[in-house]
Amino acid sequence: MNKKGLFITFEGLDGSGKSTQIDKLKERLTSSGFEVLLTREPGGTTIGEKIRELILDPANDSMDDMTEAYLYASSRAQLVRETILPALEEGKIVICDRFVDSSIAYQGCGRMMGDVIRQINLHAVEGCMPDLTFLLRVTPSGGMSRINSRELDRIELAGKDFHQRTFEGYEAVAANEPDRVKVIDAAGTIEDIHEQIFSYVKELLSLE
Amino acid sequence: MNKKGLFITFEGLDGSGKSTQIDKLKERLTSSGFEVLLTREPGGTTIGEKIRELILDPANDSMDDMTEAYLYASSRAQLVRETILPALEEGKIVICDRFVDSSIAYQGCGRMMGDVIRQINLHAVEGCMPDLTFLLRVTPSGGMSRINSRELDRIELAGKDFHQRTFEGYEAVAANEPDRVKVIDAAGTIEDIHEQIFSYVKELLSLE
Repeated sequence: MNKKGLFITFEGLDGSGKSTQIDKLKERLTSSGFEVLLTREPGGTTIGEKIRELILDPANDSMDDMTEAYLYASSRAQLVRETILPALEEGKIVICDRFVDSSIAYQGCGRMMGDVIRQINLHAVEGCMPDLTFLLRVTPSGGMSRINSRELDRIELAGKDFHQRTFEGYEAVAANEPDRVKVIDAAGTIEDIHEQIFSYVKELLSLE
Repeated sequence: MNKKGLFITFEGLDGSGKSTQIDKLKERLTSSGFEVLLTREPGGTTIGEKIRELILDPANDSMDDMTEAYLYASSRAQLVRETILPALEEGKIVICDRFVDSSIAYQGCGRMMGDVIRQINLHAVEGCMPDLTFLLRVTPSGGMSRINSRELDRIELAGKDFHQRTFEGYEAVAANEPDRVKVIDAAGTIEDIHEQIFSYVKELLSLE
């Protein structure tokens, strides 16, 4: 793969503050003159957003775990091919809110589907892995306390044990790939967390 | 897998007369005292029908082939677990309009995605293969001439070469598994075709 841009993903439980940090990083990079493309999973494309609606709609409570896993992979396959690869080819910095690590943590560990998730996603990702991933570490109860003011979607409603297993899944992902996945404690101030994140990005971009 | 029922699928290009033959077979089996469950792909479940809409909507013309392959697999995963396996467990005869052979023929051969399709579908099917499959053989032009009175969906609009490769894909499927896949010439009369189909089913059910 002939990549020219930079592919950064954000991971973490709901309530970990990903959105805030993504916005701040985008703003900082844009004002430094970089072209930044912001996207998210599931979704990010017209077709992917329709798939996202299916996945998150609490009405679809009879959805089998395997169906869910394939739906995430289908949204991902579209996003990689329609959005991420072309943007990287154009030299852009792509920031994606969630990517395949979410499937490993939520389906592989949360849903206890194990290595099946990696196998299913092989052709969806097809080698397009992030250059850098930020895992904003928040405990399940800590994350939930930050989002309980809004209506929960089907994944957020999946229960305490599910979210504990997902948390542990993320820890395993970070332990397996320390060079790519940087763990940031989400308990700090917004500014502190942003500075930690930016220092890693700066290094990768060889900025002063 | 502890299967008690019988799993029959119908395959063929659009316009091959599957629907007519499925209805006739269901009627005959029902009047012989069998419990028959009729279903279809993509779709067959509430969630699967929503996935079907996404796949077939001509508005989704930017859908990547890989996205499409995962969407078919997701609908299939749901159908196998929510509908087919429980019905077989209850001893029913399940008749399904299209199944994994459609993906092999349409995506694997029509879209030229090859063995990727089989790999992607491994976990969707998970060993739940049909006991008997009828391939109603019609050429692409023969099939198209039978359906050109109605509006075409996204797959039907995929072009002549696509449908020729799909035709050849079906022939290969039948050649690879002659015990399971019975090829029936769709050019015969409705009654003749039905009698050919029923003779195979009768044999499998050990009817006189």
